[in-house]
Amino acid sequence: MRQTSLFSKTLKEVPVGEVSLNSQLLIRAGFIDKTMAGVYTYLPLGWRVLVKIENIIREEMNAIGGQEILMPALSPQWNWEKTKRLEKVDVLFKADGANQASRKQNNSVYILNSTHEEIITPIMKKYASSYKDLPVAVYQIQVKYRNEPRPKAGLLRGREFRMKDLYSFHKNQEDLYKFYELTKKAYAKIFERMDIGNDTFIALASGGDFTKNYSHEFQTKCENGEDTVFKDLDSGICYNQEVAPGRVSLENGEEDLQVLEKVATTGIKTIAKLTEFLGIPKEKAVKTLLYKDEEGNFIAAALRGDYDINEEKLFRIIGFKGFRFADEGEIEKITSAKSGYSGLIGLSEDIDIYMDDSLQGLKNFAIGANETNYHYNNVNFGQDISEPEKFYDIKEIKPGDISPDSGKVYEVFKASETGNIFPLNTKFSESFSCYYDDENGNKKPIYMGAYGMGPTRIMGVLAEKFADEKGLSWTESVAPFKVHLLQLPGKNKQVKKQAEYIYRKLKDKNIQVLYDDRQDVGAGEKFADADLIGCPYRIVVSEKMIKENKIELKKRNENQERALNLEELIPEIIN
Amino acid sequence: MRQTSLFSKTLKEVPVGEVSLNSQLLIRAGFIDKTMAGVYTYLPLGWRVLVKIENIIREEMNAIGGQEILMPALSPQWNWEKTKRLEKVDVLFKADGANQASRKQNNSVYILNSTHEEIITPIMKKYASSYKDLPVAVYQIQVKYRNEPRPKAGLLRGREFRMKDLYSFHKNQEDLYKFYELTKKAYAKIFERMDIGNDTFIALASGGDFTKNYSHEFQTKCENGEDTVFKDLDSGICYNQEVAPGRVSLENGEEDLQVLEKVATTGIKTIAKLTEFLGIPKEKAVKTLLYKDEEGNFIAAALRGDYDINEEKLFRIIGFKGFRFADEGEIEKITSAKSGYSGLIGLSEDIDIYMDDSLQGLKNFAIGANETNYHYNNVNFGQDISEPEKFYDIKEIKPGDISPDSGKVYEVFKASETGNIFPLNTKFSESFSCYYDDENGNKKPIYMGAYGMGPTRIMGVLAEKFADEKGLSWTESVAPFKVHLLQLPGKNKQVKKQAEYIYRKLKDKNIQVLYDDRQDVGAGEKFADADLIGCPYRIVVSEKMIKENKIELKKRNENQERALNLEELIPEIIN
Repeated sequence: MRQTSLFSKTLKEVPVGEVSLNSQLLIRAGFIDKTMAGVYTYLPLGWRVLVKIENIIREEMNAIGGQEILMPALSPQWNWEKTKRLEKVDVLFKADGANQASRKQNNSVYILNSTHEEIITPIMKKYASSYKDLPVAVYQIQVKYRNEPRPKAGLLRGREFRMKDLYSFHKNQEDLYKFYELTKKAYAKIFERMDIGNDTFIALASGGDFTKNYSHEFQTKCENGEDTVFKDLDSGICYNQEVAPGRVSLENGEEDLQVLEKVATTGIKTIAKLTEFLGIPKEKAVKTLLYKDEEGNFIAAALRGDYDINEEKLFRIIGFKGFRFADEGEIEKITSAKSGYSGLIGLSEDIDIYMDDSLQGLKNFAIGANETNYHYNNVNFGQDISEPEKFYDIKEIKPGDISPDSGKVYEVFKASETGNIFPLNTKFSESFSCYYDDENGNKKPIYMGAYGMGPTRIMGVLAEKFADEKGLSWTESVAPFKVHLLQLPGKNKQVKKQAEYIYRKLKDKNIQVLYDDRQDVGAGEKFADADLIGCPYRIVVSEKMIKENKIELKKRNENQERALNLEELIPEIIN
Repeated sequence: MRQTSLFSKTLKEVPVGEVSLNSQLLIRAGFIDKTMAGVYTYLPLGWRVLVKIENIIREEMNAIGGQEILMPALSPQWNWEKTKRLEKVDVLFKADGANQASRKQNNSVYILNSTHEEIITPIMKKYASSYKDLPVAVYQIQVKYRNEPRPKAGLLRGREFRMKDLYSFHKNQEDLYKFYELTKKAYAKIFERMDIGNDTFIALASGGDFTKNYSHEFQTKCENGEDTVFKDLDSGICYNQEVAPGRVSLENGEEDLQVLEKVATTGIKTIAKLTEFLGIPKEKAVKTLLYKDEEGNFIAAALRGDYDINEEKLFRIIGFKGFRFADEGEIEKITSAKSGYSGLIGLSEDIDIYMDDSLQGLKNFAIGANETNYHYNNVNFGQDISEPEKFYDIKEIKPGDISPDSGKVYEVFKASETGNIFPLNTKFSESFSCYYDDENGNKKPIYMGAYGMGPTRIMGVLAEKFADEKGLSWTESVAPFKVHLLQLPGKNKQVKKQAEYIYRKLKDKNIQVLYDDRQDVGAGEKFADADLIGCPYRIVVSEKMIKENKIELKKRNENQERALNLEELIPEIIN
């Protein structure tokens, strides 16, 4: 394509507030346009990349037997009530008439789907009535809407974004897991084809409400990624921070036991203020968090002051029951103190206490006194409270912490979640009574899996990962054009003639080429634009090279250009 | 693809309330699933058809230089305020948080775009600053959301549907209209490729707010279409009913003039009741409608009682000014009577009166007396009111009416609007101050055109047009599979063997084939399913044919099957 005809141009500036590397580069290079926070238009260059990414995904989904469909974005609220997610999903959008005239025509309120279990399960109910109809897998590449609070990560997190979602349906859990493993392999292949196979790791993550098993995330190393992955150095197993087991990096030391002390701490309600007031490090304070579970029982969770609670871990330990923070009234009732003064000493025996293993061996620590405006200091197990039968791992671990498996410090890296796969099991089939008749005529619930992958997010990750200080650098499989052909300015008419010849020649060979045929732009700007747009190959036709009867070829990810004869050029690019 | 693996099955029943022919057939055949009124899922068969339709459109858009992009569905309200359409577009949806948790995260309200002028124009402003950047055309194939009151026409009118929208940008009106004509040709080619070229007509239609010129609709003959097209038999020019000029089919006859009579008509406010009360035909009554235009002037429009007003025509006649019905208070003020009793006699001279040409030569007619509970009867021009200088054509014409061009009765047919093209001129560029610098450095507004086409609607039209009493019948260019291969049941193992062989052979030749390999289904059901699904070619392998060493081939749109040798089969299908 001729650059003079290309809809977009490179820009000098990005919109105010656009802080992510991927969107800054993609906007400057003319791949995307920002409509508003978390919502983008894909311009011709960006659309070409997106289509290539989606076609790679499509091919690999077809290869494992996925059948492509297209589900709507609008759905009735009823479907979401059925799964009890209408009030629960905190990114859910609704849609209804925007003005009086519209509401007068139709006053209904719909849901804008943030995911499609609520749509596909009732469809499956119509088509899979017998064991003979199973297994089956369908997928779509479609737009998702999520009411994200403050999307600032460009294409890595949007309010409107493209998603490939595959849903599989099986007779039993064994079949589900067989297909689940097949999908893992297909995903790996997709990432390989995009040249991020070596940097993409399967990380264990929360299974959500769906399963007691972990789900699996595909995490691609990415400096600006929103996730932190912990990798065990011996086994290579990766965990999302939200589920990573771990031991503290800073061990509790030996010291003499001091005598318990009650300290007036008026208005001091946080670990930060408490440790500052007492002049002790955070590791010497214990935080006590109070929760109420869905059955009405109270739970106390205690951690060393330098750690935060990991509620996902607590959820698993207490047996996959839902819970929430106790409210002010409840805290006052069970501790006789205002919040900020909760502690472990003197708590009612009705309350289940879970102590994190960061407390193991901790001596002379400070903790709330269960009395407003008071804390204890120099608390010790055995002396002031009894040591629990068992310590738990309920902390959010930190870089530097130790893997319980290998006993070694985790390798930690930032990553972006480029895919995730969930064993949904029977969660949604039960909601919609989606049963099948087995070989003996018995009704059984269908087992489901859900497999997500975000093409637009992947585009953002690829933009960031391969970029350098000069701009984007696309891998061949997704590049908008394989070749960027530059006709440099000059008086020698041969330059234009030869550039036009090479342009035709490349097109004849079906090589996708962006041809910078602009007549009023200098060489420096042409080079800078080519680096910013980032096609894998750059061909330069210039007066200097014409004199030597040569053409200059350079790969975007190499530093050195090469001078070639015309006959050598095309074979080098076809490679 | 093997039918045993196909996600969908043919169904015996369609959902209650699904009344349109296209959706009944497409649901029964397993092409689509209904999520709710006006919202459908495209199942594997339907998705295959849709992709083929969209690719034909895509190829022809690329051929005229359209560059593909993808714009978002969500947009800020601000863009719609800018064009004054936020309160005006009566199908506009908004989107915001569906529950408390979601609204707490982000309380903003967005618009779900029903069309994309509000998005593309601000983008163009960034990229087209100079005459050198023009002309340029971009398009997308994307999902539109419209809050339709009662969608009952299946894929012909949805609340969520796919749309190709192309936008072109030009230096001046001349360039715009050149490209406009180019697009007409591209559209014609698309319809030809789908075998509806001969049944698709360009009809003149309202240009909306955008232009004093007509817009052009591509209307495909379709019995259940929502539009009525009037075709002039001599010129072949087609009009959408909303703009069709016309003369009355029933002429006003000769008769003696009677004497004016004032009749008490208490509570009689409609033409229907009035003519019943007076015992006269509707053609003997005149209806007077009162409007107020956007400058505050009152307008009276009068038509013969058997005609309705066509406000689009009135809009053009009064000079493209907006207007609305006068309200009750205004009517009482200007006629001294309640609504239902307005007439032409004694109306203030300030009021502009437009009389439809159906009144020309009308004698002894009834009309409101501008006095509550009274009408006049036996009104006559010259005698009771003066004949106007000019009669106008402000009526909605009816089948049987006469084209003023040819003087012949129009050919009238029902049609579905499969495409439309609008000369937007500078309407949107002015709203967003989208100007370019011309060759002399002067700022000028960019001229725009918009060109829509609905792939999902086209799918519905194709489904209806080619269907017969047995089911769907797809034209080759969009068929989900070219061939439906049926393996009939029987004891002879050769049947299965040969069917499998043909299946492999067709796949080797890259012929798309749906292979009915079901073992537990009878011949009758297989034939019925093949007819319902509607692939262009049907191949049958049966015990009977095996004995004769033949294979049966039948085209879906022909009645007669043919017995062929294996060697003859493939060439017949490749054709």
